[in-house]
Amino acid sequence: MTNAIEAKLAEKGLVLPEAALPAANYVPATISGNLIYVSGQLPMKDGKPQGIGKLGREFTIEQGQEVARQCVLNVLAHVRANLNGDLTRVKRVLRLGIFVASAEGFTDQPKVANGASDLIVELFGDKGKHARAAVGVAELPFGVAVEVEATVEFE
Amino acid sequence: MTNAIEAKLAEKGLVLPEAALPAANYVPATISGNLIYVSGQLPMKDGKPQGIGKLGREFTIEQGQEVARQCVLNVLAHVRANLNGDLTRVKRVLRLGIFVASAEGFTDQPKVANGASDLIVELFGDKGKHARAAVGVAELPFGVAVEVEATVEFE
Amino acid sequence: MTNAIEAKLAEKGLVLPEAALPAANYVPATISGNLIYVSGQLPMKDGKPQGIGKLGREFTIEQGQEVARQCVLNVLAHVRANLNGDLTRVKRVLRLGIFVASAEGFTDQPKVANGASDLIVELFGDKGKHARAAVGVAELPFGVAVEVEATVEFE
Repeated sequence: MTNAIEAKLAEKGLVLPEAALPAANYVPATISGNLIYVSGQLPMKDGKPQGIGKLGREFTIEQGQEVARQCVLNVLAHVRANLNGDLTRVKRVLRLGIFVASAEGFTDQPKVANGASDLIVELFGDKGKHARAAVGVAELPFGVAVEVEATVEFE
Repeated sequence: MTNAIEAKLAEKGLVLPEAALPAANYVPATISGNLIYVSGQLPMKDGKPQGIGKLGREFTIEQGQEVARQCVLNVLAHVRANLNGDLTRVKRVLRLGIFVASAEGFTDQPKVANGASDLIVELFGDKGKHARAAVGVAELPFGVAVEVEATVEFE
Repeated sequence: MTNAIEAKLAEKGLVLPEAALPAANYVPATISGNLIYVSGQLPMKDGKPQGIGKLGREFTIEQGQEVARQCVLNVLAHVRANLNGDLTRVKRVLRLGIFVASAEGFTDQPKVANGASDLIVELFGDKGKHARAAVGVAELPFGVAVEVEATVEFE
């Protein structure tokens, strides 16, 4: 349990949430070959959506980054659950899709997305260096500010 | 032609549309290895877009679910066309990207997306359990309410 | 350097930009097996974002197509950089994700996206025939009108 990545999480005082099942006919993640496709994750914490609001209205960039980090924790919870609890089996984070709920005129999606990207690279180093698409959407589920999906290669 | 999935479609009174070619320089689906990438499908029926409007304005959640189902029928038409007419060759529906045209303040994208997810799982069972990203976008082609793209593993 | 695709680019008077590194903790492209995942590319030129505005407000469809083409040039710059400078190693462009910043009521995303699709097919022929998802988003980074991400198979 105390591998390098778990240690880094602990250092940062971060706790991965439980890998909760969605309440619908889809799954948190699918596997094909050595790829994991992780469903779009919301900033859930203790089963409740956090970070409700839009960038450029309720939230500053810094607050949006924090919301993005919470999404990443949920992404990683599902990756870990699919790798028998061992995040060191991540070979490469291939792609993040980062959706930022954006009020009219808010165009700093890249800075908000850095909240997700920075945490991934802090935890995984070069293996965490990913491609990404960061876009500003009209609305997200439950009114949250950020949603993050991922494609991850494992070994 | 009357395999298990075709039988379920018939039971539900659902008919897959013709796998129509797009009128542009792209294709409905590409294949790499054992994966099919299906282009974002609109709720076309008999060559015409259905379900024109937004959630939270013209459409209720239930109506949006119906539009999402129509998109899925078009997704499956193209999957079938790429599998020599045999949908039982689907090994796993890996990912759905579900885009919901959302009026200001509409945040029930997951419920709308369930229209797509439920149909897929009804038809394919565990093989249909997919990862998904459901987001609310500003506008979709022709003003339709839902667009669905897919990544499908086959054998 | 003067292979068929470079020759077509030259014929059209198009110059691929430098494959510039993003100024954040992500990378322009990742590779898994024989697939390249290219990050969402903006219409950057000489290091500056072009095409700032929305479709249906500042830009006509034709102008949006031009912006989409500039995004594709950046996509191809990164594909080339990952293939030792040889774009003839592209086996198939599998998928484009095309995000169009859309003012209320603008629903011609497919026509704008054709700016990207047409250029890809002009350059790569059948190998360029891709699946795509074209959607209208609220806002894009720096206020640009189009963002294009890609998945490309190579040999």
